[in-house]
Amino acid sequence: MIIDISREISEDMAVYKNDEKFRPNLSKVKSLKENGSNMTKMVLYSHTGTHIDAPFHFFESGKRIDELPLDKFYGKCKVFDLTNLDEKITSGDLEQLDIQDGDIILFKTKNSFSENFNFNFVYLDKSAAEYLVSKKVKMVGIDELGVEREQPGHETHKLLLGAEIPIIEGLNLRDVPPGSYTIYCFPLKIRADASPARAVLIK
Amino acid sequence: MIIDISREISEDMAVYKNDEKFRPNLSKVKSLKENGSNMTKMVLYSHTGTHIDAPFHFFESGKRIDELPLDKFYGKCKVFDLTNLDEKITSGDLEQLDIQDGDIILFKTKNSFSENFNFNFVYLDKSAAEYLVSKKVKMVGIDELGVEREQPGHETHKLLLGAEIPIIEGLNLRDVPPGSYTIYCFPLKIRADASPARAVLIK
Repeated sequence: MIIDISREISEDMAVYKNDEKFRPNLSKVKSLKENGSNMTKMVLYSHTGTHIDAPFHFFESGKRIDELPLDKFYGKCKVFDLTNLDEKITSGDLEQLDIQDGDIILFKTKNSFSENFNFNFVYLDKSAAEYLVSKKVKMVGIDELGVEREQPGHETHKLLLGAEIPIIEGLNLRDVPPGSYTIYCFPLKIRADASPARAVLIK
Repeated sequence: MIIDISREISEDMAVYKNDEKFRPNLSKVKSLKENGSNMTKMVLYSHTGTHIDAPFHFFESGKRIDELPLDKFYGKCKVFDLTNLDEKITSGDLEQLDIQDGDIILFKTKNSFSENFNFNFVYLDKSAAEYLVSKKVKMVGIDELGVEREQPGHETHKLLLGAEIPIIEGLNLRDVPPGSYTIYCFPLKIRADASPARAVLIK
């Protein structure tokens, strides 16, 4: 069984903070009638839709997304149901969960049930990021276009990316039962701070 | 063991027929110093670098890349060494190979040893496409930015895509030993005729 946990990239998709500057643009550069085949020009941002942040997003000397080893992006994955939380995920919420060295951890929250960008999205508090770093997880994912808000120092990003733990933002976990899976979520091979990615779970 | 068989997407990469119109553009829209984080704007084409063609590329009523079932894009994969061929792959070259229903077939040719776009690239002749359709393979991949040339009716594309067999173009198979692998090569979830993809082999 394979489950798609990616958002559709389209011109009417939700964009971060509803900032129109970051809306993708898809246009036809060739058409079947005029050119014999269809071809599309895509103006995207490294943080469009379901995407993975690399250390370079917050560290000038950090690795770009194409510099991280590929084995970061697949493996044993646990989807935890935290839909009971209204504001943020703290270390206290994680201590009761089975989180092990090398796990890829996805948080299913209330965010998955909103089609639009939610300015008050459930986020990963810095205490939770510290906890995940201490557990040596391999990758962390969340179901909103950001992993944190209300933390002016961006501590959650900096703690995770500083430990070379990539962050998947913009997942769609609405229809995913919590549990264990194998995840495959490879970024494009592109020299950038982040990359859109197709994220799938296989059980 | 995981092997990356994708090309790097960059501004100095090879583009189809060296047509500058299709060169990707990567620009910084946010910088760490001025905005607190790095962010990249990416102008790509649906056929940039390693990418997958969907039926809509050649059929107006054909499926877009986001409409194909995800199980098309991963599974048992055979890499065949056809580096002995100079011009094209014909059905005669395939009849001696172990090609089964549901296989994902990748052709390693002389193309993998050229950094630049080669106008005389080794291509998949329509007779080979017919043979692959008859064998009910799941997906076909080749190591140049096109799968065919010298066939004005684009029969190879039309035979494969007409049978809903996606085509991976722009693979890098230079350092890949022929043999059996599991491939994961998921396109972005985007309503288009094709999509860049990260292609990896796992053994």
